[in-house]
Amino acid sequence: MIVKKTEQFQFRFEAESADLTRVRSIVAATEFFTPAEVEIAIELVEERLAKGKASGYEFIFADSTSALAGYVCFGEIPCTVGSFDIYWIVVAPECQRVGLGRKLMQLTEDKVRRYHGRRIYIDTSGREQYQSTRDFYARCGYLPACELPDFYDLGDSKVIYSLTLK
Amino acid sequence: MIVKKTEQFQFRFEAESADLTRVRSIVAATEFFTPAEVEIAIELVEERLAKGKASGYEFIFADSTSALAGYVCFGEIPCTVGSFDIYWIVVAPECQRVGLGRKLMQLTEDKVRRYHGRRIYIDTSGREQYQSTRDFYARCGYLPACELPDFYDLGDSKVIYSLTLK
Repeated sequence: MIVKKTEQFQFRFEAESADLTRVRSIVAATEFFTPAEVEIAIELVEERLAKGKASGYEFIFADSTSALAGYVCFGEIPCTVGSFDIYWIVVAPECQRVGLGRKLMQLTEDKVRRYHGRRIYIDTSGREQYQSTRDFYARCGYLPACELPDFYDLGDSKVIYSLTLK
Repeated sequence: MIVKKTEQFQFRFEAESADLTRVRSIVAATEFFTPAEVEIAIELVEERLAKGKASGYEFIFADSTSALAGYVCFGEIPCTVGSFDIYWIVVAPECQRVGLGRKLMQLTEDKVRRYHGRRIYIDTSGREQYQSTRDFYARCGYLPACELPDFYDLGDSKVIYSLTLK
């Protein structure tokens, strides 16, 4: 594995049509998402390309010299004042463990602050497989706000993490 | 006020283009929703008309002889197995207090059962104005599963109600 530092990535705030293929590729490469989840990930990019800002989806893409290294998708939650949701965050397997996920979270916080956001939410599963994901959110300062048992499936709860911006 | 019984309503399971105007009219008439919320209500109908079942939104409309009396919009939550959300339920002011809301909830439960749903969620505000809404969900058998402080706005929490289907 070639170790990259986050300085080696270029951050991009607009989606391009080539991101449809790039997003599919890195989301599938993580082997973490179901086929239905992969389709949802693509749909969010399609919505952004079709409707622009009106889609309610914002993206931050991290490009390495050769490929998409990771991205985050977030947006203001409709009918709220200042509450944002992180809908998706993915880092390509070969770019993990160099702080890119953390960097994408920080860039998201910066953007949300600029939009006068107060809170950021992110949902994940309570399953064992997602322990590292939950640990990552905790390291980013998020606190578990509630857990809904059997939400995703029987025995697969949803945990809602929340960050209050200062 | 003319007292109606739920037997006087015709229930309809498909959206028609005329529902765009009808929904706007009764959602506005309740004086319960913000202009942004009214637009979201309309968008859900638009999505259903444009994409059919693929929209993920199901509707049950209650027609009186002269107008739309109420409706509910619900759907399976993407990336879950058997979890459904009630996105919207509205009863026109002149048709309230005759059991129509309860009837729409029951018809929704019947549909969700037929889709092999296990759980139904419904979100509402923790504000005083929504006490009667929360009481209504409780009477329908829903339990508060969690409360997210300051979700809708500062001092305006979101309460997530949940019903486990037997």
